[in-house]
Amino acid sequence: MAGGESTRLWPLSRRRTPKQFLRLAKGRTLLQATAARMRRLVPWEQMLVVTAAAYADEVRRQLPRVLRRHILVEPMGRNTAACIVLAAEWLAAHVGPALMVIVPADHAVSDTAAATRTLRTACVLAGERDCLVTIGIAATAPETGYGYIEKGAVIAGAPGLHWVRRFHEKPSYAQARRYAASGRHLWNAGIFVWKTDVLRSALRRLAPELERALSGVWRSESDSARRLRRAYRQLPSRSIDVALLQPATVLAARSPRVAVVPASFGWLDVGTWSALHTLRGGDADGNTAVGKLLALDARGCVVYAPDHLVALLGVDDLIVAEHDGALLICPRGRAQDVRRIVAELQRRRWTEYL
Amino acid sequence: MAGGESTRLWPLSRRRTPKQFLRLAKGRTLLQATAARMRRLVPWEQMLVVTAAAYADEVRRQLPRVLRRHILVEPMGRNTAACIVLAAEWLAAHVGPALMVIVPADHAVSDTAAATRTLRTACVLAGERDCLVTIGIAATAPETGYGYIEKGAVIAGAPGLHWVRRFHEKPSYAQARRYAASGRHLWNAGIFVWKTDVLRSALRRLAPELERALSGVWRSESDSARRLRRAYRQLPSRSIDVALLQPATVLAARSPRVAVVPASFGWLDVGTWSALHTLRGGDADGNTAVGKLLALDARGCVVYAPDHLVALLGVDDLIVAEHDGALLICPRGRAQDVRRIVAELQRRRWTEYL
Repeated sequence: MAGGESTRLWPLSRRRTPKQFLRLAKGRTLLQATAARMRRLVPWEQMLVVTAAAYADEVRRQLPRVLRRHILVEPMGRNTAACIVLAAEWLAAHVGPALMVIVPADHAVSDTAAATRTLRTACVLAGERDCLVTIGIAATAPETGYGYIEKGAVIAGAPGLHWVRRFHEKPSYAQARRYAASGRHLWNAGIFVWKTDVLRSALRRLAPELERALSGVWRSESDSARRLRRAYRQLPSRSIDVALLQPATVLAARSPRVAVVPASFGWLDVGTWSALHTLRGGDADGNTAVGKLLALDARGCVVYAPDHLVALLGVDDLIVAEHDGALLICPRGRAQDVRRIVAELQRRRWTEYL
Repeated sequence: MAGGESTRLWPLSRRRTPKQFLRLAKGRTLLQATAARMRRLVPWEQMLVVTAAAYADEVRRQLPRVLRRHILVEPMGRNTAACIVLAAEWLAAHVGPALMVIVPADHAVSDTAAATRTLRTACVLAGERDCLVTIGIAATAPETGYGYIEKGAVIAGAPGLHWVRRFHEKPSYAQARRYAASGRHLWNAGIFVWKTDVLRSALRRLAPELERALSGVWRSESDSARRLRRAYRQLPSRSIDVALLQPATVLAARSPRVAVVPASFGWLDVGTWSALHTLRGGDADGNTAVGKLLALDARGCVVYAPDHLVALLGVDDLIVAEHDGALLICPRGRAQDVRRIVAELQRRRWTEYL
């Protein structure tokens, strides 16, 4: 899934280059790093990338080994439910029954080996039990920016793996503290594993309008763009969690059931500039910098300015990000509000900075 | 006087371009604005500029109408006493007795007409009374970055003009508050008016080593550079206040006496980034920006980034300055400490940013 927009990493993320295409750590972009992790599970020829028309060229540029016909272009953004069902329908039309591993292209993972082991476990579970498998990350802090998965009973014969009791939307801080302390709540990594057949039959029962809108959309190459556009236009924008997984847990008595593989592999939804600190760690004063930094009496700052020397004097916990003629300065505690700057730029029609 | 270095306006001011050469407000540089003010008193052909070898080309470029032989190059910086005596000796050698108006090239003045009236008054006073005349600016705030002039008795027959009682070095904040409240203390603008003859006879009595070192240094063009270098090398680095004016007030019984013309013409020693706020005023939120600014929940900030859009979110009273690959961020209250950054750059030999 490589079609998302991102506003909270402005000024680095722009309309044309949302975060999946950015080189936030050293070396590869988040998209390239994600594909490299998937390469441990499947050959290049078995990867599908779903993205927006505006990003298709960039995907081709960054992932030259992915087959061009495997880059599926959505006519508009309709959240993860549409994206995933679109790919499932493509597989049904072109490959036949298959096992899907669905990953967002804009997350970071520090322990690739552990992530690969987790996904293999998820594949075995989804293949043998015909269930919908999610990945839940051990919640090490009361994060309010993530959704949570509440685990239920251990799956018989699969020690350490659980059925899902409930999905929780992004919580308040008080709730997040309770979740982090409970031992039952895991961060929803937005990673899913299931058979296409299992998904499609679940959709028919639990989200029939989604299944109806997209089934057969790939039945012939000719005219598929027009069909896709017409189908997407009527689709609501819903996440797969809301459209399918949460209803499936409520009706847990009937198959397919929803399972969760608890994991811990240095997973990070690179949502805001604060993530740079988690991604790269801090120096002795707790400052993280991409670019040259001179810090005097400055602590806990996050700096992204690869082309600058940044001199900080007497400031704490500040985000400083410079890219392509634009400069952002805000406290780390306001990192979520960076989207307000993007909204204000849109309102003023200062499009050159969008 | 256009030879000073400046470190507190880094990263805009660099070794090659101290603040007198910078375009801080719109249009002209501080040097050009200073020359334009002097133009109201004298023709271009009567201006002398004293500067350092490293800056001579820049002075010629910025002031093409000043005669090239009127740009005097000091072999090294030795504070204002040497600079002023050097110019006085040049006048004595090339012009004969003259009236000198001495102004720093790196100060800003908002009311040019008032400044011109003040200097005319000072010229008349220095011409008629054979005294050393200073300009004292009405102290509107307890500034700790300025020296102060304490005025004494009114000069007989010259209402509003005073003899100087004492010079005070840069005060503590508590002292500065007392000075600002006293009604007797004025900011020392570093502007002086006197006859060359009066200066030279005062030097012979009060600073004979200075007079000895520099007298006759211009007696022939040939070899003057070598003579200058030798003379400067042995000179102490002292301000004219310390070297001459303060001793002259102590010995006030004997001529020449030191006078002060109190004035108020929007004078500003552009010492730190905070001055930008005074120079340009703030917007409704008290923010001042050179460059494009987008401020959300941000107040009292000073921004210099002509080539950037700067987005401030949730920060107050911050200085943000970008120039030529370097970016400074510090609270306004730490503006004086910017020189520490320059010192640290020197220590690390990051010369490309100096």
